[in-house]
Amino acid sequence: MQPILIAGKWRAAEAAGTFQAANPQTGTPLPEQFPTSTWPDVDAALNAAASAFQQLKRLPTAKIAAFLRDYAERIETNSEKLCAAANAETGYPLKPRLAEVELPRTTNQLRAAAAAAEEGSWTRPTIDTKLNIRARFEPLGPVAVFGPNNFPFAFGSISGGDFAAALAAGCPVIAKANTSHPRTTQFFAELAQQAADASGLPAGTVQLIYRTSHVNGERLVADPRLGAIAYTGSRHAGLKLKTAADAVGKPIYLELSSVNPVVILPGALQERGEKLVDEFVTSALMGTGQFCTNPGLTLLLAGAATEKFLEAVAKRYTDAASGPLLSAGVADSLARGVEVLTQAGAKIVAGGKPPEAAGFRHANTLLRATAAQFIARPLELQTECFGNASLVVVAESVAELIGVLEKLEGNLTGCVYSDTAGSDDPTYDQIVPPLRERVGRLLNDKMPTGVAVSPAMNHGGPFPATGHPGFTAVGIPTAMPRFAMWACYDAVRESRLPDALKNKNPTGKLWRSIDGSWTTGDCG
Amino acid sequence: MQPILIAGKWRAAEAAGTFQAANPQTGTPLPEQFPTSTWPDVDAALNAAASAFQQLKRLPTAKIAAFLRDYAERIETNSEKLCAAANAETGYPLKPRLAEVELPRTTNQLRAAAAAAEEGSWTRPTIDTKLNIRARFEPLGPVAVFGPNNFPFAFGSISGGDFAAALAAGCPVIAKANTSHPRTTQFFAELAQQAADASGLPAGTVQLIYRTSHVNGERLVADPRLGAIAYTGSRHAGLKLKTAADAVGKPIYLELSSVNPVVILPGALQERGEKLVDEFVTSALMGTGQFCTNPGLTLLLAGAATEKFLEAVAKRYTDAASGPLLSAGVADSLARGVEVLTQAGAKIVAGGKPPEAAGFRHANTLLRATAAQFIARPLELQTECFGNASLVVVAESVAELIGVLEKLEGNLTGCVYSDTAGSDDPTYDQIVPPLRERVGRLLNDKMPTGVAVSPAMNHGGPFPATGHPGFTAVGIPTAMPRFAMWACYDAVRESRLPDALKNKNPTGKLWRSIDGSWTTGDCG
Repeated sequence: MQPILIAGKWRAAEAAGTFQAANPQTGTPLPEQFPTSTWPDVDAALNAAASAFQQLKRLPTAKIAAFLRDYAERIETNSEKLCAAANAETGYPLKPRLAEVELPRTTNQLRAAAAAAEEGSWTRPTIDTKLNIRARFEPLGPVAVFGPNNFPFAFGSISGGDFAAALAAGCPVIAKANTSHPRTTQFFAELAQQAADASGLPAGTVQLIYRTSHVNGERLVADPRLGAIAYTGSRHAGLKLKTAADAVGKPIYLELSSVNPVVILPGALQERGEKLVDEFVTSALMGTGQFCTNPGLTLLLAGAATEKFLEAVAKRYTDAASGPLLSAGVADSLARGVEVLTQAGAKIVAGGKPPEAAGFRHANTLLRATAAQFIARPLELQTECFGNASLVVVAESVAELIGVLEKLEGNLTGCVYSDTAGSDDPTYDQIVPPLRERVGRLLNDKMPTGVAVSPAMNHGGPFPATGHPGFTAVGIPTAMPRFAMWACYDAVRESRLPDALKNKNPTGKLWRSIDGSWTTGDCG
Repeated sequence: MQPILIAGKWRAAEAAGTFQAANPQTGTPLPEQFPTSTWPDVDAALNAAASAFQQLKRLPTAKIAAFLRDYAERIETNSEKLCAAANAETGYPLKPRLAEVELPRTTNQLRAAAAAAEEGSWTRPTIDTKLNIRARFEPLGPVAVFGPNNFPFAFGSISGGDFAAALAAGCPVIAKANTSHPRTTQFFAELAQQAADASGLPAGTVQLIYRTSHVNGERLVADPRLGAIAYTGSRHAGLKLKTAADAVGKPIYLELSSVNPVVILPGALQERGEKLVDEFVTSALMGTGQFCTNPGLTLLLAGAATEKFLEAVAKRYTDAASGPLLSAGVADSLARGVEVLTQAGAKIVAGGKPPEAAGFRHANTLLRATAAQFIARPLELQTECFGNASLVVVAESVAELIGVLEKLEGNLTGCVYSDTAGSDDPTYDQIVPPLRERVGRLLNDKMPTGVAVSPAMNHGGPFPATGHPGFTAVGIPTAMPRFAMWACYDAVRESRLPDALKNKNPTGKLWRSIDGSWTTGDCG
């Protein structure tokens, strides 16, 4: 049985049982046995994290930055081992996906977090010199990170964006591995602990458990020793954790589900139909469609160009091999989702069934429905089919298209493709207001699957895409204040203030809002 | 029966019954009958607010600013009428409290909100020129404001800080009057509607209902037409609304309860004991102690100076007249709170009982307990006694004092008084870390009852002081993003971007973060 990482040491779990991951390409279980932890493991992790937090608060942020950089370097040094583990557990190709895309994204993100931790402007120091009131964000406490199945590196619970943001904010992380890639997560945790030791971070800054019962998961997120929770995964499990955390007023940041509507307007289809077929299919089937921002719902206006587009997409879906899905659960859930869509009236245009091939798979599936059908059964027809299935909804008029948009739940993204000559502009102006307020990120002429790590990114959106529309899970430093409290100092003597709030700018580079103006200068 | 304000018109409620406020000075009911609205009233308000929101989004922010300024002016013009109504409903003195303190605070706040709306930097425009990704805060939708009983103007549901912040952010407000001052709220709503008409704001931008059943209150906060909720009031009612809002992922900002610990260190007591008696008593009994930031829990180290301090405070408590409490409910709840404290072992040093006087009152009450008692029964001994009752906890050692601090729930404020010569400094350094992480605002040598409207203010804090430690309810513009969503524009064509995110700075004064630097300049 594989060990867990608690308080700086790898040790045997107090396990209630074990589980194995499986190879998605073949469907066969992988050899390692991982423990399902009981409460004593979680309790020990919470104690160590609480103690680490008190020590971390006293350390210079440069130490945390050094840790993040050292960790990034160790990840690069061990790229081959990490990619091999992830390839076995996720079925993602070694190249380009794992080694050339996701791994560099992960290390870049850790280094961006290091820079942000060290530079400090993420704390938004705000000074009112007249009243001598000063405030900034300060770290909230240990953060439990529940990573998703689909990004073993970049959203991994001990390597990804939430981990990087929480650590850089000064919060220890208790990582709960995604159970579809425990071995990969374990390898990351080994490197993280080595880096923590090398950088002199307190034991318990980074910890790993693999699985708990639902009851213990809910107990963990409600624990007073915890500062916040970041969760990316299924809506069902996420909402259970949300209920538990909300009941005790614990900040929980959830990324739950999204169908990511894409509207392709007639002028664009006319202008560059073939190119759009290619863009769409590439984005929709990339990673077997297993992206949070996969374009799951495409909206078109009825007409010959739309029929041509659909035919071409259907052919591409049929011709392309069906990639592996991350787990038996993902394959089951995808099949169930397709069934919900067809039962609500959507017609299968391509695929629709699990193929006769080894491993966890579903045929590349394209479905279509009318806008009238969508408007009549909006909840069923916006069921997320996580994986390689896409619904196209065809509207008879712009008014009907708007009717569809007004029935959408909150989503991470919304895209509009329009022509460059301007014939689509009047429609664009009509459809964007209802779309804008329902999505965290609005795109033009671009598929939603690329989520750049930028301060201006929003990987978030209205419920149920996430739990709160004011926050993003991707983007350094914008994602960091999720793990902080607003801490005000009212008439606190200057010698006792944190350096960042003293009259003198501690580095000459820290951005502070002084009497309403942003400056890197001193007070007064 | 008094009318409600829906969709720009005063009209009769579809009432399930009526209620009257009472004069706290005498305990006698006031003449006006106010309706308890049924769901059709709430439903109509939600429809009108949703429609107003769509129109507001298209208006220049200068219109909202003009409204807020015009409203402030009308409040000043009608000061006498407003103060008379509030005096009758709250028992607060006309001067200085209502006319000279709370009313100017309220109009200043509205004008600060107007300036912030117009200036726009609260939206935190963030631009990544390299990737052409841009983001800012955009208004979330109609906001339901539940105002507290204790600030009929400055926290009033249609005049106070939440109202000002929501409106300035671009969100219509559905005000739920506090049932202890419906007449005052009605007068404000009349002025608000006049100002909205004069400024050409859409009908439904400001609306007022007085009371609903609990079931309909919970239905309101969970309604899809609503963007967010701001609530200030009792923990019990607030948590019920929180559960309803959380279940549908609706942002709800709560200010619930706080005992606002004040630590007075021995050196300070030695140095300026008499002055501290005066500061403490003034702050603790101001407004009959009915402040969210009332110093309800004072921590002292055992010794002769502490006994002298307590004697002097007790004498002042006994000598001072017991001011009126806001309602029969407040008086009952205060009596029950004092009982919880005494049953947990606290001893009454002064007061303790309702006095033989007309109106809603409780004797000024001072209680004491030992730190050992507090540590043994921390939950009971930090029961908020909203009103003129104060608990003093005496610790035998600094270690015991820290033990008390570590048992504290989240609070709005925490104060430390220390001497100017430095003898208290070693103790200060020990006690502040556990205090800091449990309070939103840390003060030195100053009572917590003044809550300045400053961008650096935090009127917030960890649960259960509020529902989320990252937000403040007071402070313009810092309180405004509570009512906004983070809205990203990814590769959106420049002509389609909001002006604030275009390359050119629209005013030359808007603060924007461009490629990590704050500037009022243009892109590139």
